[in-house]
Amino acid sequence: MQTRVYPFSFGDRNMGDLLGGKGANLAEMVKLGIPVPDGFTISTKACQEFLTSGGVTAELLEEVDIAVENLQKSTGKKFGDPTNPLLVSVRSGAKFSMPGMMETVLNVGISPEIAQALADLTGDARFAWDSYRRFVDMFGRIVCGISNERFDEVRLAVIASHGASDLSELGPEALRELGEKHIAVIEQETGQPFPYDAKTQLQRAIEAVFHSWNSDRAQLYRRRERISNDLGTAVNVQMMVFGNIGQTSGTGVCFTRDPSSGDLGAYGDYLPMAQGEDVVAGIRNSLALADLEAIDPTSFQQLQEIMHRLELHYRDMCDIEFTIESGKLWILQTRVGKRTAEAAFRIAFHLVSEGMITMDQAMTRINGEQLSQLMFPQFDKGTGKKEITRGIAASPGAAVGAVVFDSATAVEHARDGKKVILVRRETSPEDLAGMVAAQGILTSRGGKTSHAAVVARGMGRAAVCGAEQIIVHHEEKYFSVGDVIVREGETISIDGTTGVIFAGSVPVVPSPVTTYLEGKLDPKEFSPVIAAVDQFLRYADAVRTMSVRTNADTPEDANVARRLGAEGIGLTRTEHMFLGERRSLVEALVLAEKDEERHEIIGQMEKLQFADFLGIFTEMDGLPVTIRLLDPPLHEFLTDRTTLAVKIANQEARGEVTSEREGAMYRAVNRWHESNPMMGLRGVRLGVLIPELFTMQVRAIALAALAAQRKGVIVRPEVMIPLVASQRELLYFRATLEEEIHRVLDENDSNLDIKIGSMIETPRAAITAAKLADYSDFFSFGTNDLTQLTWAFSRDDAESSFLPRYLDLELLPFSPFESLDQDGVGLLVTIACEEVRKVKPKLKLGVCGEHGGDPLSIHFFQSLGLDYVSCSPFRVPIARLEAGRAFVLQGAKMTALSVSNA
Amino acid sequence: MQTRVYPFSFGDRNMGDLLGGKGANLAEMVKLGIPVPDGFTISTKACQEFLTSGGVTAELLEEVDIAVENLQKSTGKKFGDPTNPLLVSVRSGAKFSMPGMMETVLNVGISPEIAQALADLTGDARFAWDSYRRFVDMFGRIVCGISNERFDEVRLAVIASHGASDLSELGPEALRELGEKHIAVIEQETGQPFPYDAKTQLQRAIEAVFHSWNSDRAQLYRRRERISNDLGTAVNVQMMVFGNIGQTSGTGVCFTRDPSSGDLGAYGDYLPMAQGEDVVAGIRNSLALADLEAIDPTSFQQLQEIMHRLELHYRDMCDIEFTIESGKLWILQTRVGKRTAEAAFRIAFHLVSEGMITMDQAMTRINGEQLSQLMFPQFDKGTGKKEITRGIAASPGAAVGAVVFDSATAVEHARDGKKVILVRRETSPEDLAGMVAAQGILTSRGGKTSHAAVVARGMGRAAVCGAEQIIVHHEEKYFSVGDVIVREGETISIDGTTGVIFAGSVPVVPSPVTTYLEGKLDPKEFSPVIAAVDQFLRYADAVRTMSVRTNADTPEDANVARRLGAEGIGLTRTEHMFLGERRSLVEALVLAEKDEERHEIIGQMEKLQFADFLGIFTEMDGLPVTIRLLDPPLHEFLTDRTTLAVKIANQEARGEVTSEREGAMYRAVNRWHESNPMMGLRGVRLGVLIPELFTMQVRAIALAALAAQRKGVIVRPEVMIPLVASQRELLYFRATLEEEIHRVLDENDSNLDIKIGSMIETPRAAITAAKLADYSDFFSFGTNDLTQLTWAFSRDDAESSFLPRYLDLELLPFSPFESLDQDGVGLLVTIACEEVRKVKPKLKLGVCGEHGGDPLSIHFFQSLGLDYVSCSPFRVPIARLEAGRAFVLQGAKMTALSVSNA
Repeated sequence: MQTRVYPFSFGDRNMGDLLGGKGANLAEMVKLGIPVPDGFTISTKACQEFLTSGGVTAELLEEVDIAVENLQKSTGKKFGDPTNPLLVSVRSGAKFSMPGMMETVLNVGISPEIAQALADLTGDARFAWDSYRRFVDMFGRIVCGISNERFDEVRLAVIASHGASDLSELGPEALRELGEKHIAVIEQETGQPFPYDAKTQLQRAIEAVFHSWNSDRAQLYRRRERISNDLGTAVNVQMMVFGNIGQTSGTGVCFTRDPSSGDLGAYGDYLPMAQGEDVVAGIRNSLALADLEAIDPTSFQQLQEIMHRLELHYRDMCDIEFTIESGKLWILQTRVGKRTAEAAFRIAFHLVSEGMITMDQAMTRINGEQLSQLMFPQFDKGTGKKEITRGIAASPGAAVGAVVFDSATAVEHARDGKKVILVRRETSPEDLAGMVAAQGILTSRGGKTSHAAVVARGMGRAAVCGAEQIIVHHEEKYFSVGDVIVREGETISIDGTTGVIFAGSVPVVPSPVTTYLEGKLDPKEFSPVIAAVDQFLRYADAVRTMSVRTNADTPEDANVARRLGAEGIGLTRTEHMFLGERRSLVEALVLAEKDEERHEIIGQMEKLQFADFLGIFTEMDGLPVTIRLLDPPLHEFLTDRTTLAVKIANQEARGEVTSEREGAMYRAVNRWHESNPMMGLRGVRLGVLIPELFTMQVRAIALAALAAQRKGVIVRPEVMIPLVASQRELLYFRATLEEEIHRVLDENDSNLDIKIGSMIETPRAAITAAKLADYSDFFSFGTNDLTQLTWAFSRDDAESSFLPRYLDLELLPFSPFESLDQDGVGLLVTIACEEVRKVKPKLKLGVCGEHGGDPLSIHFFQSLGLDYVSCSPFRVPIARLEAGRAFVLQGAKMTALSVSNA
Repeated sequence: MQTRVYPFSFGDRNMGDLLGGKGANLAEMVKLGIPVPDGFTISTKACQEFLTSGGVTAELLEEVDIAVENLQKSTGKKFGDPTNPLLVSVRSGAKFSMPGMMETVLNVGISPEIAQALADLTGDARFAWDSYRRFVDMFGRIVCGISNERFDEVRLAVIASHGASDLSELGPEALRELGEKHIAVIEQETGQPFPYDAKTQLQRAIEAVFHSWNSDRAQLYRRRERISNDLGTAVNVQMMVFGNIGQTSGTGVCFTRDPSSGDLGAYGDYLPMAQGEDVVAGIRNSLALADLEAIDPTSFQQLQEIMHRLELHYRDMCDIEFTIESGKLWILQTRVGKRTAEAAFRIAFHLVSEGMITMDQAMTRINGEQLSQLMFPQFDKGTGKKEITRGIAASPGAAVGAVVFDSATAVEHARDGKKVILVRRETSPEDLAGMVAAQGILTSRGGKTSHAAVVARGMGRAAVCGAEQIIVHHEEKYFSVGDVIVREGETISIDGTTGVIFAGSVPVVPSPVTTYLEGKLDPKEFSPVIAAVDQFLRYADAVRTMSVRTNADTPEDANVARRLGAEGIGLTRTEHMFLGERRSLVEALVLAEKDEERHEIIGQMEKLQFADFLGIFTEMDGLPVTIRLLDPPLHEFLTDRTTLAVKIANQEARGEVTSEREGAMYRAVNRWHESNPMMGLRGVRLGVLIPELFTMQVRAIALAALAAQRKGVIVRPEVMIPLVASQRELLYFRATLEEEIHRVLDENDSNLDIKIGSMIETPRAAITAAKLADYSDFFSFGTNDLTQLTWAFSRDDAESSFLPRYLDLELLPFSPFESLDQDGVGLLVTIACEEVRKVKPKLKLGVCGEHGGDPLSIHFFQSLGLDYVSCSPFRVPIARLEAGRAFVLQGAKMTALSVSNA
């Protein structure tokens, strides 16, 4: 019984689990009657077996033998037989496409004897020995792991010895010579004789593909894309067809639409007299697909028809590899094509317009990540910018600045108001200050989980990492990419969204999509992608059950967020209103010795807060506004302890007298100092100890709400108590707040519904949520603090110390601050929801942590049936889209993960 | 239907819930036929009704009327009727005895007219008017809330005007005058006419008792003793019998055994010609109970018989109040008597020896708190020490030192090696440094939940708080208690276990109980209490299912703990082995630039750790030893950041060059600095980042274990990984450790079972415990860190800032660091246990937080079926006893709480 190997005539495109993506699509095309060279697929199960047992089993070899025999029958050719040789390609094909990870060995089954026979059979000796040397080259690199450089050396020597300038000028003999010389290298490097036997070649190629599953690059890719390590890859073995036989042959790739814009029409490249890899490798300049019409109109016509059929059949844009052998068209592979964010939106929308897919289906073809790419400020496309190189897009955003190579210089320049880009081989905690000071970060090493990437994302700085072509000369203060040299002080521009690095200063322009969503776009700039985004957002808004609010601390933020579709404010952080020049009020409060002084200061604060809240209520007319009472410890507003100690020590050393105020401040700073402020005197606890600060806040809220009301604004204020851990403290503190609110309302002879809710951000609040529900009008999960406490990860410390290492070692699949840890933190949220619903089924449940803007987390919150998420203003459209997708996917019983990896 | 008021003939001693303790015991005595003046009890339900509705209901008054009528029938007297007047006492009686909270009004129903009638009836005018003025006095103070001082003034004036020296010298007329003058005060203060009507007096007295339930003192007491606020008090109304009628009358209290030692025999006091309160108030010197035999041999004999009957009936030592009226003995009250810790053990053991109770019953009569009192070092009883005053025993221990009044002076003296006692009105976070520097803390304000008390207990310092008679003159640097003045620098001794404060230096001696338990007692010092303790500990050891281990970091600690009965080590904190002079090794490690340097330093550390572990293994021969790998962040071993910054700033200001090492250290300190070290780079995370430190530790453990084995020691090493939060990190880190252990074992060609377990101290570890179980040989709950993270309470910060306030406001019933928060943290522990048992039912589960030595927490851990608790060496006997009690109580389905409050 065949259980490991399947002919292409078996299966269909839904069997990617077993056959890999490529194998499943080959089977589908065979079903459709498309001209596919015959072959068979070795299943992912066989790969799993190989990875577990550490080698190819006898059973597998037996099944391969049978499959080869069947292939011989269907093709009429014989594997390893010079009289009528069958050559095959061996290619990897995992369930999820892993670009750049693909391993391919072409022309397997060849030997000098067979090459000679091919020359005789086709009358094209150059083709035959070209095929031979190609096989040897690929076998050496992919199966034996020999470096490109080693082969390059030999190739260049042979080309030179024949007085040629490149491979295309070499004749059959020279190509044969090249093959032999590569074999010599292989035998030297491996210490083994080269296998001329077809079966051995096939077996070795299969093993190499299996092994490639666990290559460093493949593992890295899977980690980045969150693909399970357990899947394994399938292997496709397919009869070779040759694009390298004379003028009537060639090979190409094409797309049923433009994969970068989504435009209709056939796009692609064609390379005459070549084998598949040549197109991808870009060794020679290929022709545009349209040129094929003149060269081989029949094949062109046939290809057009096939492209049309595939797009209709797949109901999506397809990516196709084809070969024309002596005028006959063969399709080697197809798949749903990768596309840019813009193309994704446009294609999905086209297909809906054309009635090929439903809106729900279309919602699975796009995602929030793509929308966010369309929304980031972009480098202006019109300028003559010069791309230096590319790296990994590690933290989105466009940054322009002078290059600096160390943290101290970055800080110094930033202090002088200069914008800088910090360039390092890799970053470490010592670079933190420089990273804060810089506009963007560029590293030559490390990926999306490197220190630089994790910290930059945490801080919202643009970063391009692992730009491997860059050589950083730290001591000499310059970096080079090939011939290009960039010295300290010279300006570069980095695009953290695409990973591209430009020389010079490239103007940054706002994204037209964002401008549109904000309602500010000049109608002349309206474009198809904007139409598509608009339609999908409208659909998402129509179907989703979770509302989307925003985190906004100022009327300006509130305004932007509302334009971007926010349906309320889920979090106004009032501490942000005590920063800047207002910080001195907190200092004065801490230093005040008399009650009247304190009263006076709190009175000033109240006026400022009143104005803040009035502005926000006015902007959010008609929508709920959730205001979180003061959250951080008071000492965060005071001068840094060490700075002050040093200053006073300096004064003393110089014999100067420290001012009374400074002395008092130093004592206050010491008194308020905490070992672990994150778990210290903050939030509701500060409210219990210094109730006047918090009653001032609710008074300002109530007064501002009344003032707004008088202006005709509809206000829906919600007061949120941070850091609650027990019912008793909530009950006590809520009573304090209510008393003050009633006092204000009574004084003003008014009525107003001000809701009071509890944040659920301590593990204790989560597990005792049912007890808190009695005294809460709503719950808001503060998933950032909840993550910190559940993991015992201080975010500030973790992101710059052990978190990158944890991500690198895969001890964490992703940072729990970027995407909610569903197994741990998510379980606490789940427990809270379940327990609360038992006692108060209708209590409004929301999320105000940054996870509220993260697609995966949004899908999780949808699964819990939360009422709303809240996120930063520019994430609002993304959250709207993902909330819509989450609803659609939930109905379709698909998981977010399988889609985002599809 | 009577539902609020019950005659004494109703009920028994088990009905304390409804009738209060006093009422239930009165009913019990009536059942036994003991001569009790008749009366009735107003139930606790009526009190709850009163507290809810805010006043006495008509229904209650009606029931009281009926009860009074019945009482008139049974006594043959009439309430408010001068012809045959019935007077009653009105006394509070809650379910749990609340000493000092008791409200009593005697002689209710009296008026000048009735007093005159009583004088006529008894022929004792002095008795009649004495009863009258007593009633007025108590009514004024208890019902009307008039201060003692106000009445004292009047009393002294009347005594003086009659040329007398005290009350006993006043005749009937003078006593009447005193009554009238008190009435004038009452009318003046209340602005109301004095109620001469018997019914009104009764109603007002009942209301006063109900109100007293919510007095500040009562609330404070309940908080301290963890008694629910909802219970309410009963009111006992009883026919008055008079101990103040002539020479053949008197009143007394007695105990069926000596309540301070537990010795057999009748103990008590008798006061002729007095009413009950006189004995308690100590107004006159009372006689020893034995003297009653000469005065009234019949009553004495009868009382002896009743005492014997009550002890036999209650099977416990009883506390009895009695009155002899004109030669007739009446029993007014009885209850199971309060006793000292020593008496508790001795009485319980006597009763078992006498066959009156079982060992299991005896286990409910003693507890770990009492044992701990017997174990603390004590002030030497033999010296002529002078007690100055008493306060609240807030943090146990005996401390001797020079008095200081501010933190700075305390620190200064401590630096000079002087021992000090910090005396403050109350403490605040600013006093922290001084509290650390002091031997003990004494405050004149605040109770067991005050800042001083909470911080002192957290630090293990002795503290006496709320010594209200002390007046602290902070500026003038002395304190006074009445005439006694103690100036700064003078020595005092404070006993945090009893609350007593002595002048001068009292020698501190170890407790003989502890000396015995350590196996070091001179046989001549053996005493009955030691025998009792010994027997109960043996019994506890025999029955308990949880074993008791110890937290010990040195061989010395291990030795002490083992003598005290530890059955292994549950926690060896290896970081304590890097303190002191070894700290420089960590500094060197952090500063090392080359791998060889680092290697060399780690090699030195390994040798030191080897010796540490060898010593501990040897002491614990045959018993398990759990060693926790390095837990705190490395920077905790480095110089303080601010200190270093100031030092370098000073050097710079003086133009001095900072040494290279110091500069490097400053950079290192900044690099390693963390905002929230508790949640930073520590435990397993440090192990992932710097594996060499941790493989060094397991190497030292394995080598020490092998060395011990070679000496014939049986070693049972257990390695514990701190701060685990996820399965992946545990799996990864465990593999690192195992590899090293196998290397050592292979190198030494030996075999050894070294268990590797995970601490459960992050909330995530608790809720995902089932996943961690796969890679753990045991779990140890680190309830201290788990408490910090679950509540978001940084212990260091909380105990000195908001925790005392939270306790004062009753937002917390007790500090979650002293006793496990069962509803929150306990729920996480429960979830972990349940989930783990589903996948690995036999996994060993222990506790190594300080809660392992806390009685209430031990009972909770017993309810979860944990395998062991671990606590500090001197808590081991307490944990043994409580683990035994927990088992016994669990069997009896009693709760720990109801017993500890009984």
